[in-house]
Amino acid sequence: MIPTRAQRPLGALIVCLAALAACPAGAVDPLPSWNDTPAKQRILSFVAKVTNEGSADFVPPEARIATFDNDGTLWCEQPMYVQLAFALARVKTLAPQHPEWRNTQPFQAVLEDDMKALVADGKHGLAELIAATHAGMTSDQFEEIAGDWIAAAKHPRFKQLYTQCVYQPQLELLDYLRASGFKTFIVSGGGIEFMRPWTQRVYGIAPPQVVGSSIVTEFQIKDGKPVLMRLPKVNFIDDKAGKPVGIGQHIGQRPILAFGNSAGDLEMLQYTTGGGGARLGLLVYHNDAQREYAYGPAGGLPDSKIGTFPQSLMDQAEKSGWVVVGMKDDWGRIFPFDPQ
Amino acid sequence: MIPTRAQRPLGALIVCLAALAACPAGAVDPLPSWNDTPAKQRILSFVAKVTNEGSADFVPPEARIATFDNDGTLWCEQPMYVQLAFALARVKTLAPQHPEWRNTQPFQAVLEDDMKALVADGKHGLAELIAATHAGMTSDQFEEIAGDWIAAAKHPRFKQLYTQCVYQPQLELLDYLRASGFKTFIVSGGGIEFMRPWTQRVYGIAPPQVVGSSIVTEFQIKDGKPVLMRLPKVNFIDDKAGKPVGIGQHIGQRPILAFGNSAGDLEMLQYTTGGGGARLGLLVYHNDAQREYAYGPAGGLPDSKIGTFPQSLMDQAEKSGWVVVGMKDDWGRIFPFDPQ
Repeated sequence: MIPTRAQRPLGALIVCLAALAACPAGAVDPLPSWNDTPAKQRILSFVAKVTNEGSADFVPPEARIATFDNDGTLWCEQPMYVQLAFALARVKTLAPQHPEWRNTQPFQAVLEDDMKALVADGKHGLAELIAATHAGMTSDQFEEIAGDWIAAAKHPRFKQLYTQCVYQPQLELLDYLRASGFKTFIVSGGGIEFMRPWTQRVYGIAPPQVVGSSIVTEFQIKDGKPVLMRLPKVNFIDDKAGKPVGIGQHIGQRPILAFGNSAGDLEMLQYTTGGGGARLGLLVYHNDAQREYAYGPAGGLPDSKIGTFPQSLMDQAEKSGWVVVGMKDDWGRIFPFDPQ
Repeated sequence: MIPTRAQRPLGALIVCLAALAACPAGAVDPLPSWNDTPAKQRILSFVAKVTNEGSADFVPPEARIATFDNDGTLWCEQPMYVQLAFALARVKTLAPQHPEWRNTQPFQAVLEDDMKALVADGKHGLAELIAATHAGMTSDQFEEIAGDWIAAAKHPRFKQLYTQCVYQPQLELLDYLRASGFKTFIVSGGGIEFMRPWTQRVYGIAPPQVVGSSIVTEFQIKDGKPVLMRLPKVNFIDDKAGKPVGIGQHIGQRPILAFGNSAGDLEMLQYTTGGGGARLGLLVYHNDAQREYAYGPAGGLPDSKIGTFPQSLMDQAEKSGWVVVGMKDDWGRIFPFDPQ
């Protein structure tokens, strides 16, 4: 944990309390990949108090809602969002049917692996890529396309399936929360239908508990079959101030725990910890270039357009008592696979 | 069940199969308020086959999704939608703060109990009523307002709380499905935030499993508190072709069982039963004026603007093998309370 002023005075007391409440002698550690630091103790202590019926902070199971960002919080988001890698791969797959793409941006940039030109094309280019690769088919077809791709696609550095490049400490935390009566949700800026084909298998999170960005779908009878057709039009962006809105729409309850890793998660953490009673806000801080990546100007690390963690977020975390989980010190293990 | 040609030949066989598979001698009847008719047997037989691992129609628990319309399917929708009764009551409560309403439609009509003028004002009037009574407060405030009202408001004919005017056979069916590994969802044209405060208590359906119509909400920091503010603007209408879209957005899985009662449920039943494998579509038919209400031109009953069941829906039910549950013959009991 990156210690903040607000957290230091309570640290020792919380360690004792959590040790008493959540880790009786001989009990199995529910979070073995978490180092024994204040971050871990804050989590154990929080879960202990909200699940203890005798505690003033007790929360009944039906209100134990925990929301997790996905990119950079549950799985690796560098060197690019996995969904962007999917979109780029999809352009290459579809290119033979679109000869015009060889001379049209942003497709030409993708086909020539010219990331500089792609970035120069900006948001407009991204929207065109999404429309060309994520729309024009039924939801069932897209589920199959995305599911097939993710079943085989590998991370360029770790040479493992992307779905293996998930954080082992977070898998343990999700299990621990569910074993403690929590319902766990993903609340991600990523595409809701890109995630749903595999979140049950990878995170134990069923499709209805995935909240994300979406494009418009339309009910149609196509060749006699009732389908949802995906249209090239944005429906909802589940990022920043959209995250509490997405939570309101999909969950209808204010979470008591939220875990993010970037400026896109600020409002979700504000909304979560701004409710009454016991609340816990957490942020992954990527400061481990050796085992994963190190980025975030708040810690004097290189800036990144992906998963930006600005100084203002660090300030807000300190002010609000959110736990900043430093990957380097707080996590004993990063991925389920053994490092190469 | 209103027998249709498609269902008749199989009736006797299904009764036998279901009796063997789902009701072994001495077992407790999971649906005691359902008469022993083909409708009940269709349900028992369906659940038996999708839960039997040895069956060709076996469906794993994570894919056992059942969706229920609310108004007219789970609770009484006559003489008017409960949410409309809420809106009208709310206008009267708020009237002292709005002296101008005494001379402005549709408010004047509400305050003077002039239903004829209200109906004449049509959709525009309804939109104004919703804006005045459902927007301009936070989601938390609306939850409290709706929750407080529903805790006390009574049905004009049955003199019971609206939340008591729910169908006992459906409460048993929801329990039976959940005991059989199903996830149960509401997919209603009603307001999502109007239903969520009480669906867990009344139906055992948690807020995240409620899909409904919604207005736009916006994340705001108000008086230092992070809130979702409700704006007077429609976000989504979860009716007709909107129901499969709402299912796609919220559930992300095609249901295997859907239960409705009106033309607004047609597309949900098409979408549900149009998937591969075993599927069951059901419709409540309100033909019991003595114990509840009788309406629906398809059966030669009076037409109703609420819960319309046209001949075209009856035709589609027959063509598709959907079960039409006739309240009069298929349900031994209607409500949890004893009739007056």
